[in-house]
Amino acid sequence: MRVVKRIAQVRKIIASAKRRGKTVGLVPTMGYLHEGHLSLVRLARRRCGFLVVSIFVNPTQFGPREDFGRYPRDLKRDLRLLKKEKVDLVFNPSVHEIYTEGHQTYVEVVDWSKIMCGASRPIHFRGVTTVVLKLFNILEPDIAVFGSKDFQQAVIIEKMVRDLDLSVKVVTGKIVREKDGLAMSSRNKYLSKDQRKNAVVLYNSLKWLRQAYIKGLRDPKLAIKKMASMIKGKNGKVDYIVFVDKNTLEPVKKLRKGTLVALAVFFGKTRLIDNTTL
Amino acid sequence: MRVVKRIAQVRKIIASAKRRGKTVGLVPTMGYLHEGHLSLVRLARRRCGFLVVSIFVNPTQFGPREDFGRYPRDLKRDLRLLKKEKVDLVFNPSVHEIYTEGHQTYVEVVDWSKIMCGASRPIHFRGVTTVVLKLFNILEPDIAVFGSKDFQQAVIIEKMVRDLDLSVKVVTGKIVREKDGLAMSSRNKYLSKDQRKNAVVLYNSLKWLRQAYIKGLRDPKLAIKKMASMIKGKNGKVDYIVFVDKNTLEPVKKLRKGTLVALAVFFGKTRLIDNTTL
Repeated sequence: MRVVKRIAQVRKIIASAKRRGKTVGLVPTMGYLHEGHLSLVRLARRRCGFLVVSIFVNPTQFGPREDFGRYPRDLKRDLRLLKKEKVDLVFNPSVHEIYTEGHQTYVEVVDWSKIMCGASRPIHFRGVTTVVLKLFNILEPDIAVFGSKDFQQAVIIEKMVRDLDLSVKVVTGKIVREKDGLAMSSRNKYLSKDQRKNAVVLYNSLKWLRQAYIKGLRDPKLAIKKMASMIKGKNGKVDYIVFVDKNTLEPVKKLRKGTLVALAVFFGKTRLIDNTTL
Repeated sequence: MRVVKRIAQVRKIIASAKRRGKTVGLVPTMGYLHEGHLSLVRLARRRCGFLVVSIFVNPTQFGPREDFGRYPRDLKRDLRLLKKEKVDLVFNPSVHEIYTEGHQTYVEVVDWSKIMCGASRPIHFRGVTTVVLKLFNILEPDIAVFGSKDFQQAVIIEKMVRDLDLSVKVVTGKIVREKDGLAMSSRNKYLSKDQRKNAVVLYNSLKWLRQAYIKGLRDPKLAIKKMASMIKGKNGKVDYIVFVDKNTLEPVKKLRKGTLVALAVFFGKTRLIDNTTL
C-alpha cells in the first residue's frame, strides 16, 4: 500500500494502473476511520482492480464556527486499518496541496445545498462538491463509494455527476451502526458518556417511526411531533426532522414506501445525523 | 466532418479517436462564426490530431434582459466554414441535451466573476465556466482554444482549470480585427451603420493609449479620463475601462509593461468589449 501526499505523484500512479487495464475505485474520507468507512472500503475493493482511499479533512466544508480544527485525526491508525483491507493507494494531501493560494473556484448543486443539513451549514455542501470534484479530476476513478448516513451528500454528489456529465459511477454503502443502534460517525467521539447513551434516540426514533408506519401512520406532522418529543426527552436539540422524496428531496405530504426520513440532532455542540428509507 | 447533436454519440466518437492515439482539440463557440473564431480553429488544427468545434448558444451565460433569444445563429454557414478548415467533428447539442430538467449544478470562479464584465453581467461567467466544464467533461479535450477578445473569460477558464485540477491545456488566440480596427464579434451585427462607424473608437482609444504610454503616461486615472472622453465623443456609453494586472486582474496604480487595458462600451443596447496588453 502506497501513501502519497502530492497530486503529481498520485496522477502518475493512477495513470500507470489505468495503462495496466485496472478499474480505479475511490473511497473519499476525512480519516479517523470506523467500521462505516471500512464497509465502504470493502465494497469498493470488490468492485475495482485498483483501490484508492483519500484521507483529507476538507476545510472548505466546515463553517467558521464549526469543528475543522478539532476534527479527530489519527493517520497511523487509519493506515493500519486500510492496509488490512488491501487498499492499493492512500492519497493524503496537505490542505495547501489541494487549495493553492488564491483558490476561488467552487462547484455547487445550488438548490439541494440549501435544505436539510445545508440550512444550518450554508457552505458545507459547496465545500463537499468542490473537493469531491477535485478528487475525481485528480484520481479519475471509475467508481466512487460514499456512505449513506450522509444521505443528502450522496444525493448531491450523484446530482453533480449527472449535471456536469462526469463519467464516474457513484455507489452508496449502507449505514453501519454501533451495537445499540447509533450510526457510526467520527463525531461520536465528541460525546460525553451521558450524551453517548442518549444519542441512541436518533436510531430509536427511526425504529419507532418504522413501526408506526407499518401500523398505518401516514402524517409527517404527527410523526415529527412524536420523534421530536422522544429526542427532547433525551436532551437532544432537534436541528431538523424531514420526510422527503429520496430522489428529489422534496418534502412529502404523506408517508409512503420510498420516503426518506432524515434527522439532525445536537447533543451539546455535537451535531449527529441519521436517516432511513421507508 | 461529422455533425453530432447527442452527448452519448459524441462520447463514442471521441473515445474512438483517443484509442487511435489522436490528441483531441476543442474550440468552443456560440456559432455565427467570423474570422476571429476561424483563427482559433486554425490554431487548434495545427495543435491536434482530432479537432472538435462546439456550437452552442449557452442560455446560462445570458442575463434575463440580455440577448439570448436574438443572438445571431446561422448553422448552415458555420458548417460550411468549418468544413473548409478540416474540422473533424462539430458538436451542436440542443439546450435540453446540455441542461436536462432540474439542472442545478454550477461552477464559479467566484472573485473574478464579479469584476469587469461580471459587474454588469452578474451570472455571465458562472454560465460560461459551467458550460465549459461540461464540454470538457463530455469531449475530454487535451487542448482547448479560446479567443483573447474575451480576455477575462480566458483568465477565468485558466483559473478554473488550475483550481479544479483539470488536465486540459488552455490556449488563447489573438484578437482578429476588421480593416478599420474594430475587434471581430458576432454582436457587431447588431450595430446600425452609424454605430458601426463609431464603434471603432474602442480600438482607437486603445491605440491612443499605447502611444501615450510610450510617451510616458503612467497614471490610469488620466488615461481613463481621456479614453472615456474619446468614447463619449462617438456616442458610446462606457461600461468600464480598467487597467489591471493580466494574471491577477487586480487594478494597477501605475501603467507598466504587462498591464491589461480592457474596456466595455455600449452603443445603444449593444455592448462591445476590447482589450490590449501594454
